Amino acid sequence: MSIGTSGGLRMGGGQESRQDEDNTATVCGILRQRFGDRFTTGESVRSQHCHTTTLISPQLPDGVVFPHSVEEVADVVLTCSKFRVPVIPFGTGTSLEGQVNAPLGGISVNLLRMNQVLRVNEEDLDCIVQPGITRKALNESIRDTGLFFAIDPGADASLGGMASTRASGTNAVRYGTMRDNVIAVQAVMPNGEIIRTAQRARKTSAGYDLTRLLIGAEGTLGIITELTLRLHGIPESIASASCSFSNIFNACAAVIDTIQFGIPVARIELLDELTVKAVNSHSGLTLPESPLLLLEFHGTEASVSEQSAACGEIMRDHDGSEFQWTVKPEERSKLWQARHDAYWASFELRRGAKGIATDVCVPISRLADCVSAAQEKAKSMGLIAPIVGHAGDGNFHMLPLIDPDDPEEVAAVCSFVEWLAEHAVDMDGTCTGEHGIGQGKMKYLERELGAAVGWMTAVKNAIDPLDIMNPGKIIPPA
Amino acid sequence: MSIGTSGGLRMGGGQESRQDEDNTATVCGILRQRFGDRFTTGESVRSQHCHTTTLISPQLPDGVVFPHSVEEVADVVLTCSKFRVPVIPFGTGTSLEGQVNAPLGGISVNLLRMNQVLRVNEEDLDCIVQPGITRKALNESIRDTGLFFAIDPGADASLGGMASTRASGTNAVRYGTMRDNVIAVQAVMPNGEIIRTAQRARKTSAGYDLTRLLIGAEGTLGIITELTLRLHGIPESIASASCSFSNIFNACAAVIDTIQFGIPVARIELLDELTVKAVNSHSGLTLPESPLLLLEFHGTEASVSEQSAACGEIMRDHDGSEFQWTVKPEERSKLWQARHDAYWASFELRRGAKGIATDVCVPISRLADCVSAAQEKAKSMGLIAPIVGHAGDGNFHMLPLIDPDDPEEVAAVCSFVEWLAEHAVDMDGTCTGEHGIGQGKMKYLERELGAAVGWMTAVKNAIDPLDIMNPGKIIPPA
Repeated sequence: MSIGTSGGLRMGGGQESRQDEDNTATVCGILRQRFGDRFTTGESVRSQHCHTTTLISPQLPDGVVFPHSVEEVADVVLTCSKFRVPVIPFGTGTSLEGQVNAPLGGISVNLLRMNQVLRVNEEDLDCIVQPGITRKALNESIRDTGLFFAIDPGADASLGGMASTRASGTNAVRYGTMRDNVIAVQAVMPNGEIIRTAQRARKTSAGYDLTRLLIGAEGTLGIITELTLRLHGIPESIASASCSFSNIFNACAAVIDTIQFGIPVARIELLDELTVKAVNSHSGLTLPESPLLLLEFHGTEASVSEQSAACGEIMRDHDGSEFQWTVKPEERSKLWQARHDAYWASFELRRGAKGIATDVCVPISRLADCVSAAQEKAKSMGLIAPIVGHAGDGNFHMLPLIDPDDPEEVAAVCSFVEWLAEHAVDMDGTCTGEHGIGQGKMKYLERELGAAVGWMTAVKNAIDPLDIMNPGKIIPPA
Repeated sequence: MSIGTSGGLRMGGGQESRQDEDNTATVCGILRQRFGDRFTTGESVRSQHCHTTTLISPQLPDGVVFPHSVEEVADVVLTCSKFRVPVIPFGTGTSLEGQVNAPLGGISVNLLRMNQVLRVNEEDLDCIVQPGITRKALNESIRDTGLFFAIDPGADASLGGMASTRASGTNAVRYGTMRDNVIAVQAVMPNGEIIRTAQRARKTSAGYDLTRLLIGAEGTLGIITELTLRLHGIPESIASASCSFSNIFNACAAVIDTIQFGIPVARIELLDELTVKAVNSHSGLTLPESPLLLLEFHGTEASVSEQSAACGEIMRDHDGSEFQWTVKPEERSKLWQARHDAYWASFELRRGAKGIATDVCVPISRLADCVSAAQEKAKSMGLIAPIVGHAGDGNFHMLPLIDPDDPEEVAAVCSFVEWLAEHAVDMDGTCTGEHGIGQGKMKYLERELGAAVGWMTAVKNAIDPLDIMNPGKIIPPA
């Protein structure tokens, strides 16, 4: 059983609302002619281009094209525009809210073959990349420069996709999100026009911020075909530390003090007792099964040592366990293994279950309340739902583990996800800190932002009047 | 003599293009009724609401209103919208590109009476303020919390105005610009609707980034009536340092290394030889009359000491003079006096002259080339034009000193400003790093951003179809 996405259909419900079949056939014919075996309508490839890791039903595109250049992307968009056929940009397909689904059919544009680093400007700490490169490939490619790209959302996602969903992850607390780390983009707009949103200067006050408008737009306003990214120097020294707490309130109070004292912590991650239990079982560890903070410090040797010492003091003030820190790479890796394994380890709590990933973000003063209420709520609904959080940002993920074939469990998890989104919004937070709206969170957008959604719709209608760019995402149906 | 602004008139040229006089009279009547002595059509007040510090001709609004609340702002906008009369938001009037001018007449909305700090959330390091509070008043008001608002554009500008022009200033290199330090805004949109662009969470991926769309929009899309701002802890220790260089290339190379080595410098300011000469004369100092870097470090005592030492080494590597640093407040003040006095000191270079402030921003690898070419160009045109720069961002200001009554000098400065903007754009930079487009830089926008400007226009037309929100700014005439 899976959740329907009727809320995602702007042009009515079900298959009836798909665009004219003749038009689709025409577009497929043109693309086949133009791209040869780089265009396909084969079902297996199409079904790989709409997979979702959640309960949202897969909705196949009509065809998949693999462009090699921005001109080819522009050709595809222009052709689709002419025949009013939807265009859905695709990177690694790791988005979590149905962003790559094709509720109205159309053409999926797989950008993974546009995966080059076009230029690295070492003196300016920036680089220009194509959208299909993944963050690991990028960092591998620029390692010799002594620079790195800081955003790490967990998955080895493509940079175009990361920009489109305004991704962030574990070290956003220090380095910001994609919003802060993209200087400019090149994009193909709905009429096939190629634009560049900004030059390469670090800052500008020249006109509307189209860069930030396209970041987080999930491909609904245009397709990002090139990104100018901020880079950072690889830190001279990296230290890691861990600390257990008797309860979530003490752990969060320690996080607040760390941020308030201005300690430039690079990562400060929260694992709840359930996640720690899962990790122990998965990796044969013996961590105390209580809330755990994992920290990472970047800087000079003296600076990370000072940061660690200051943090250790804060942790003690909040009844944290003995604060262990290390700069040794092998010990650091071991410490972070727990965090990196958390997703897969969670399935130890219920083997064979499906995990329904969801995230919210609240002001950090409300984090402990929100996490604790969510734990109680999940428990009261009979859900096993481990938590990991980017605590410094007030952002956390829950992974309810359910049997997708049990309608009652599916209903329970849907109800829980809804409760969590609304609860976060009631706490002055957001229904999604880093996964985006896609199809899955569309119904919470108006509750969160009220009348502002009408102005988002005005922007969407102005830029994409034919509604061909990833339709059925973000903007609720009219 | 002053520069015409015909380029700023979207509806044709000159007085003929002002809106219907009957409509204006009607709106003035309604506002007089509604606001009593908080609305005026007196010429002296009106002329205070269009002053520009440059050569752009003052263009008076038809009336000035002083609202006390967002509801009153919404009333004004709704009334103006009904009669298609322009609305021009006004803060401290310190913008530099004609942003507060009224080329088509209309109502200036003075927001300085909406100047309250509504809430400080110490645990979340944020606060909510009204748009009319100035940055100094804000920092005065929150001092007891141990927190401060980091953006310092020089002028004691209002926060609403700073957001609207995407201001930054001396410590953007460490703390970012207004773009990075505004979490959410409340705004009155062109139809009088009041919206809030985001909740208070530190990050979100919920829909289009309307916050960033309004920041830097110069009031052309709506009026900002409330801001949720990021705050930072007042640093435990602050150190300052200065260093002279024999030429601009060495100074800029030292800046690049400082940034590349990841030293989290809070300010790194460049004064060229002309500015140093002016400052010496103004303040009776004896600084070497060669390019000077002024630096500030924020952190713990150990950290600022380490940063200063590392920086000192870099400066020496680039043939800098002996690197003097201090943590003593009185010595720090003295050191920064030179920088703070630079604007007024510049007039020592030509007493009685008018200074025409302009700014550009380039990738820092191009800063030395750009500054040096600008110095030569100014000299070749017979212009005295001192330079101060936010060197860590590649952003610098020039202040050509001219006789505004000499048509040849006016023509020369216009030609120089144009040359500088185009030269910066050719270096992959922007025609304005922090002053905005307003009326003065409108003609360079398309050269800088090409087809992207058409999409800005689409956004403007969608949100403000009647073109009543600060018309004649940013978007070039149709």
